[in-house]
Amino acid sequence: MSRTIKGLGKKIQITLFMVALVLGMTLNAQITRVEPSNWWVGFKNSELQLLVYGSKIGEAVPEINYDGVSITKVHHAKSPNYLFIDLNISALAKPGSFDIVFKSKKGKKAAYKYELKAREKSAEAYIGFNSSDAIYLITPDRFANGDTSNDVVKSMQEKVLNRKDDYGRHGGDIRGIINNLDYIHGLGFTVIWPTPMLTNDMPTSSYHGYAMTDFYEVDRRFGTLDEYIELSQEMNERGLKLIMDMVANHCGSNHWWMTDLPFEDWVNQQKTFESNGKLKNSNHRRTANQDVYASKIDKQDMTEGWFVPSMPDLNQKNPFMAKYIIQNNIWWIETLGLGGIRQDTYPYPDKAFMSDWAGAIMSEYPNFSIVGEEWSTNLLLVRYWQTGTPNKEGYESHLTSTMDFPMQENIVNALNEDEAWSTGFVKMYEGLAMDFVYTNPEAILVFPDNHDMDRVFTQLKENVVNTKMALSYIFLMPRIVQMYYGTEILMQNTAKPHDHGLIRTDFPGGWQGDAVNAFSRKGLTKEQASMQDFVVKILNYRKKSDAIHKGKTIHFAPENGVYVLSRTEGTETVVLILNKNESLIDLDLSHFKELDLEGKILKNVISGEAVKWGATLKLSKKGPLLLTTK
Amino acid sequence: MSRTIKGLGKKIQITLFMVALVLGMTLNAQITRVEPSNWWVGFKNSELQLLVYGSKIGEAVPEINYDGVSITKVHHAKSPNYLFIDLNISALAKPGSFDIVFKSKKGKKAAYKYELKAREKSAEAYIGFNSSDAIYLITPDRFANGDTSNDVVKSMQEKVLNRKDDYGRHGGDIRGIINNLDYIHGLGFTVIWPTPMLTNDMPTSSYHGYAMTDFYEVDRRFGTLDEYIELSQEMNERGLKLIMDMVANHCGSNHWWMTDLPFEDWVNQQKTFESNGKLKNSNHRRTANQDVYASKIDKQDMTEGWFVPSMPDLNQKNPFMAKYIIQNNIWWIETLGLGGIRQDTYPYPDKAFMSDWAGAIMSEYPNFSIVGEEWSTNLLLVRYWQTGTPNKEGYESHLTSTMDFPMQENIVNALNEDEAWSTGFVKMYEGLAMDFVYTNPEAILVFPDNHDMDRVFTQLKENVVNTKMALSYIFLMPRIVQMYYGTEILMQNTAKPHDHGLIRTDFPGGWQGDAVNAFSRKGLTKEQASMQDFVVKILNYRKKSDAIHKGKTIHFAPENGVYVLSRTEGTETVVLILNKNESLIDLDLSHFKELDLEGKILKNVISGEAVKWGATLKLSKKGPLLLTTK
Repeated sequence: MSRTIKGLGKKIQITLFMVALVLGMTLNAQITRVEPSNWWVGFKNSELQLLVYGSKIGEAVPEINYDGVSITKVHHAKSPNYLFIDLNISALAKPGSFDIVFKSKKGKKAAYKYELKAREKSAEAYIGFNSSDAIYLITPDRFANGDTSNDVVKSMQEKVLNRKDDYGRHGGDIRGIINNLDYIHGLGFTVIWPTPMLTNDMPTSSYHGYAMTDFYEVDRRFGTLDEYIELSQEMNERGLKLIMDMVANHCGSNHWWMTDLPFEDWVNQQKTFESNGKLKNSNHRRTANQDVYASKIDKQDMTEGWFVPSMPDLNQKNPFMAKYIIQNNIWWIETLGLGGIRQDTYPYPDKAFMSDWAGAIMSEYPNFSIVGEEWSTNLLLVRYWQTGTPNKEGYESHLTSTMDFPMQENIVNALNEDEAWSTGFVKMYEGLAMDFVYTNPEAILVFPDNHDMDRVFTQLKENVVNTKMALSYIFLMPRIVQMYYGTEILMQNTAKPHDHGLIRTDFPGGWQGDAVNAFSRKGLTKEQASMQDFVVKILNYRKKSDAIHKGKTIHFAPENGVYVLSRTEGTETVVLILNKNESLIDLDLSHFKELDLEGKILKNVISGEAVKWGATLKLSKKGPLLLTTK
Repeated sequence: MSRTIKGLGKKIQITLFMVALVLGMTLNAQITRVEPSNWWVGFKNSELQLLVYGSKIGEAVPEINYDGVSITKVHHAKSPNYLFIDLNISALAKPGSFDIVFKSKKGKKAAYKYELKAREKSAEAYIGFNSSDAIYLITPDRFANGDTSNDVVKSMQEKVLNRKDDYGRHGGDIRGIINNLDYIHGLGFTVIWPTPMLTNDMPTSSYHGYAMTDFYEVDRRFGTLDEYIELSQEMNERGLKLIMDMVANHCGSNHWWMTDLPFEDWVNQQKTFESNGKLKNSNHRRTANQDVYASKIDKQDMTEGWFVPSMPDLNQKNPFMAKYIIQNNIWWIETLGLGGIRQDTYPYPDKAFMSDWAGAIMSEYPNFSIVGEEWSTNLLLVRYWQTGTPNKEGYESHLTSTMDFPMQENIVNALNEDEAWSTGFVKMYEGLAMDFVYTNPEAILVFPDNHDMDRVFTQLKENVVNTKMALSYIFLMPRIVQMYYGTEILMQNTAKPHDHGLIRTDFPGGWQGDAVNAFSRKGLTKEQASMQDFVVKILNYRKKSDAIHKGKTIHFAPENGVYVLSRTEGTETVVLILNKNESLIDLDLSHFKELDLEGKILKNVISGEAVKWGATLKLSKKGPLLLTTK
């Protein structure tokens, strides 16, 4: 997420859902939460740490009597209302339920029924996203309102639906995504990344989802856990993967634990917070994470400063917090059968923890993918965080994927600039040339825009042809592709640059009564329809193209306003010719001899026309020309 | 060198100096050259390849009768006037002279006396420049005219001395440098890098020296080989090291061999050259050297294109050319007792050869230094070429040092910009933070300016205080320092930005009758004298400072217009406080607690005043404050 998210206020409240089974015996302890609320047998890591929350539960002694499960240690917190119980779940443990019995000093007992489930699929079957994939990024509140009955939940802080307020809730939900899976699938996408859908019970701006107040609960305005699972299953049936957007750095200030923190260091600057003192924001000097000369104070201010005042900064150096986050994420992977994780504000949590976190996940799910958000156009930072990078001080992130903010900027600059020695296409050419420093560039995620930046159509000054050039290039790069919902119909925020609310505009057709419906193409302008068709054509080609998924890449230094990029695998060669010349040119194809296309008949991927690769190629107008031998 | 060097014309002539000893016997062969003209015993590499040039020498059979020396192979060239003779000089060979006897088919004989010298010092005693050094860069034609008798050499192409012509010869020479060694030493420099002083017998612009027409001869306008050796010895006596500026990429179009090239591929595009066709310039797309996606045609155009039409592009892929260059450079290291090499236009020759070249030199001289000029502000390119960099495709340059163009640009931008979140000092701070990607940042050369770019005083809009901030920061960085002559007296080229001739202005006092004499300080403005004093104070402190040479570096994210950099070794801490505030501020020193300076008395390196490190520090005006505990 970006640094400019609107403040959400600091008032703190708790909504507690009583899930405890209080037995006939009277124990002072009321068990309010046990987290994770269930677990599975069959993980590599046999350890599990339960957070138990309940009035004075810290006084109780827990017992478990179940084959293969043992309590290895019980930890007391500073708050008397927490117990942390270390379990060992051995290979002998079978799926099933058992009571955790809590005994008070005076012999009184309470019990909590805990379930160990069987895993639905093998660890290896969790296949993450990769360079064969194209990800559709959705802000769920703004995509489609599939269930108007959950638009307002009266027991929650933000009580109104207001589509006229860019920062209010608009009613989009999980049902809205489920209803439109065929549309997304038809566009040619293979993965969906919805921004967070866990409870954000915040007084304002709760729509964006990055201020979680409960890490185990689906926000009721988006739907239920069952609907989330249904989404995953419906996607699975269409061969689509689901990414979950996680936040390890912070929670919302209304998180349930903020009024009763277990330890003195559960969140950073906790003493200042508890004494109502002035909290330091992060200094946002992210290079301090890598800088071998960074002062201690700068490193500390970077990771321990709060992202914004409404988001308490979690202290991942606290080992209980560390386990809590890792287990929570694994719980969601298993519960939803995820196809990947996107981690928010990647450089802001403790970096040693982030390595442990990703390492723990990748150890359990060897074919999984995790992408971290390092929002920097400095590719040395983007590079640093990717697994396998030979970092000088030995830092290994275990993170499979990072985000290509450098290329996003290069592409926009290249297309907005006039062609000259060091401007225009050369920015894309020299940007892509930098792939030599990445260990695994094809596992990096590239995108025309996302939910935190101006819509690419706005960035490109509403130039349709340039937008097509940007998208075709991005779709052809040796990368994982990500696009923000609505870019296929030229959604823009030109009226208010950098305005997050407007960037996250409602998708037309997602609300009953919408005059325009992009799902059914009703009311689209000719340009919008043309762009939608463009995306459909290329992404559906891409879906089956070995050349784009894993082929050899060759590109040619831009010359005379023409930049050529090719991908080849076996007999399939895909050539993208980007051309900035407004009037007819006759491109000398002898310069591209090494592509070995001479005399071949290629197909125009968009128009379907046959094109002969002769001595020259006539390019009649500015724009992308995508040709394939297949 | 930069891409913008003035064209020199293409007319080709040869001046041949007859060095052959033609014996009584009559052989058609006239031995004009044997290169290297002598060699030494005691190298690791026992092989030596002699280039023999003479009319129809190709017809002759060479013989040598000398203990420990044998001919292992004789190679004929395409031109009948060359022979390449492979010698093995075994460990048994003693210093001394012997005849190389050339027999014609008809039994006629000629002989050439060849000398094997003893090496004057051990291989390990050739100590290169390192982070304890500060290099003074000189354009010899423009520094000091110590010998007016060599100003014009009538037998050479450029026959006039014209100090009014920025691109003409001005008469500076080796004697001028020798005469002023005490000045350079007094400034605090420990190394001198004169730009090339080998023969450039070109019709115009021969002053710059980068268009060599003989790789074994000192340009007579600069002096003699004996004077070059005298310069080295005089420097040696003062503890100064001498860098030689080498060019492996090209020669001047008047090079002696250009009218009679030995092979068909001695220079790139040789056929086109010989048929008077249109020669391709380099495409100057230097990223093609690293880019794993670069097309073959772009790679070829990059290295085989000519730098400029007046500079034939040497083909280092020709193994005879490769050996010629390597042996030539070793010959100069031994002859002059060098303390380092600077290699021009580093990314333009064949990169596999450049690795062999540096590898061969570093193998013979393990403590030597070589710095390559990759003029790029993209530090990924600068990084790529430094030895020890873990390049993905395994490329190992053997090059000890590269040039920090990225930081040069960062420093100038930082000082020219107003302070804000992402402008001003943060450019220096985040630039230096990038050191985490270098294997050996302290072996990289940083500089305020050089002979190919605007004078730093011009780049900094003639702001004296900013120039002092730039220099003090550069002198304190964990780097090798390089400064261009005249920067100590604020030399500028503001009237004609980017004008090479003006950038290389005559140093005042270097010519008899100069109204201003910077050597004696006669006629300097107050600001010039102040800057000269500033350089003297810091560099003479630096010369003895372990903290600057090898100390731990800590810097603090800029805040409120103040940026602090410290270096520490043992009990010595040097702190540089850069301050952009025009009016008095009271700097809170508690932010710098980790420097452990509380209560200590430090010394102002420039003024000598004592300064107490208390709770705060009053900074009364904009500028650098350099404090030391020593």
